[in-house]
Amino acid sequence: MLDAAIVGTGPAGLSAALNLKLHNKEFVWFGSGNFSGKVEKSEKIANYPGIGMVSGETLNRMFARQTEEMGLQVTDRMVTAITKTRDRYILMAENEIYEAQTLLLATGASVSGGVKGEQELLGHGISYCATCDGFLYRGKRIAVLVADSRFEHEAEYLAGLAAQVYLYPTYKDCRINLPNVTRLPHKMEAVKGERCVESIVLSDGQEFAVDGVFLLRNAVAPAVLLPGLKMNGPHIAVDRAMATNYEGCFAAGDCTGRPYQIAKAVGEGNVAAHSMIEWLSGKE
Amino acid sequence: MLDAAIVGTGPAGLSAALNLKLHNKEFVWFGSGNFSGKVEKSEKIANYPGIGMVSGETLNRMFARQTEEMGLQVTDRMVTAITKTRDRYILMAENEIYEAQTLLLATGASVSGGVKGEQELLGHGISYCATCDGFLYRGKRIAVLVADSRFEHEAEYLAGLAAQVYLYPTYKDCRINLPNVTRLPHKMEAVKGERCVESIVLSDGQEFAVDGVFLLRNAVAPAVLLPGLKMNGPHIAVDRAMATNYEGCFAAGDCTGRPYQIAKAVGEGNVAAHSMIEWLSGKE
Repeated sequence: MLDAAIVGTGPAGLSAALNLKLHNKEFVWFGSGNFSGKVEKSEKIANYPGIGMVSGETLNRMFARQTEEMGLQVTDRMVTAITKTRDRYILMAENEIYEAQTLLLATGASVSGGVKGEQELLGHGISYCATCDGFLYRGKRIAVLVADSRFEHEAEYLAGLAAQVYLYPTYKDCRINLPNVTRLPHKMEAVKGERCVESIVLSDGQEFAVDGVFLLRNAVAPAVLLPGLKMNGPHIAVDRAMATNYEGCFAAGDCTGRPYQIAKAVGEGNVAAHSMIEWLSGKE
Repeated sequence: MLDAAIVGTGPAGLSAALNLKLHNKEFVWFGSGNFSGKVEKSEKIANYPGIGMVSGETLNRMFARQTEEMGLQVTDRMVTAITKTRDRYILMAENEIYEAQTLLLATGASVSGGVKGEQELLGHGISYCATCDGFLYRGKRIAVLVADSRFEHEAEYLAGLAAQVYLYPTYKDCRINLPNVTRLPHKMEAVKGERCVESIVLSDGQEFAVDGVFLLRNAVAPAVLLPGLKMNGPHIAVDRAMATNYEGCFAAGDCTGRPYQIAKAVGEGNVAAHSMIEWLSGKE
């Protein structure tokens, strides 16, 4: 069993990873090898102490270099579900299973929401992974939410299997254009179904019957990932030690609330790592 | 009246100053032009995100360069007392008075204590400034606490005026060696006196009669600076927005508690600045 698992490779996740590494903890660090998409897109950052006016792209490269210099490994797998047992967290990441004593959620702000019904119908017609579950929907009707252009090829893969696809991209300039793909005119607000997915409901009330729903996002909303996680509005509720309501589970960065700032994220990642280290030493 | 006053030029103070500046706030920033003495003395820093393995000296130079590039001014005066009126904070700094709507305490951890009796007898025989009050003790007996070698010349100046000096340096290798200076064998724990200073008490219980006490430190302990400030043991009690029990007064960095880390300090300074900006916008 690992000492810790970190979910997220933004500034908060990096800050925590640096500290766990320096304390010789064994951990897995989930996220994108591109580090923070949000940092990457920042034009100019003027308020990060120690580094003068810098582009997000450059700062992200500095994060990548430091990760390499420190010998840190990023596991580029999306965590899709987490379960807590008596003494450990069990993480599902694209059909691989990881076990860790402590958990840090550093998933960013953008995914703090989730679609209504997502938690209840996950595994019953809702999937996060086209490659894993696409074959189940051959010749059927599905809805696909795409949160990033990097998932367009997965959506196209699904369109190659399904008879009909209702597509909802959450970003501008989606390039998918296939005969059996219909672009939804409004936000996909809810997924409905008794025991498995039956339909989706848009923000204007329109309902479409579907057999399955794919949510292709960079990360899963924390409260969906770990059911029962205490939230404070759209953010994970934490105390000053970055502890959540789950024992041994901590959170840091934008997912814990405003201001959405790099400095705040690195500070919270640092504090969370120290709390995890303290928690682990109490278990020895 | 200024929008804000920041006390402390460590990473927390710098982080806050950068943000107040970017939001066009008018503020005074008290501290040393050498920034953080604690950072300066760190041999190697490996866990500050974005900057690989770096010496404290180098990082401190990076802080200095950024301060200059951003057009930030440091006011190298020690704040010795703060009073809150209905709508503002009034700060005394070496006989100058400053007024500000909001206040950030970023004074570091090392001064979180204070000597017993300090608050009660301040201005009644206890002084923080040799140049200001030294002349009052010509030919008298005084006790001098020196917290940093940079104050040795002030202690020597006092020895030139007073008949006898009891010296207590809180650091190693103090170089003061004068015939009328006696090195105290134990920590100066308390200052006693009815209406003004009468004696000092050491940690072993020994008592020495004195006419005055000089406490030569980089900063005054927050609870002495601002009487009534709610503490949490040796640290200033704050919430997640870095607010203290005084309305409009925030705290950040080592003075709010462990871990004593640069990343934590810059995070808290950032959050505190955003809280101050929000507080000010609510007053408009």
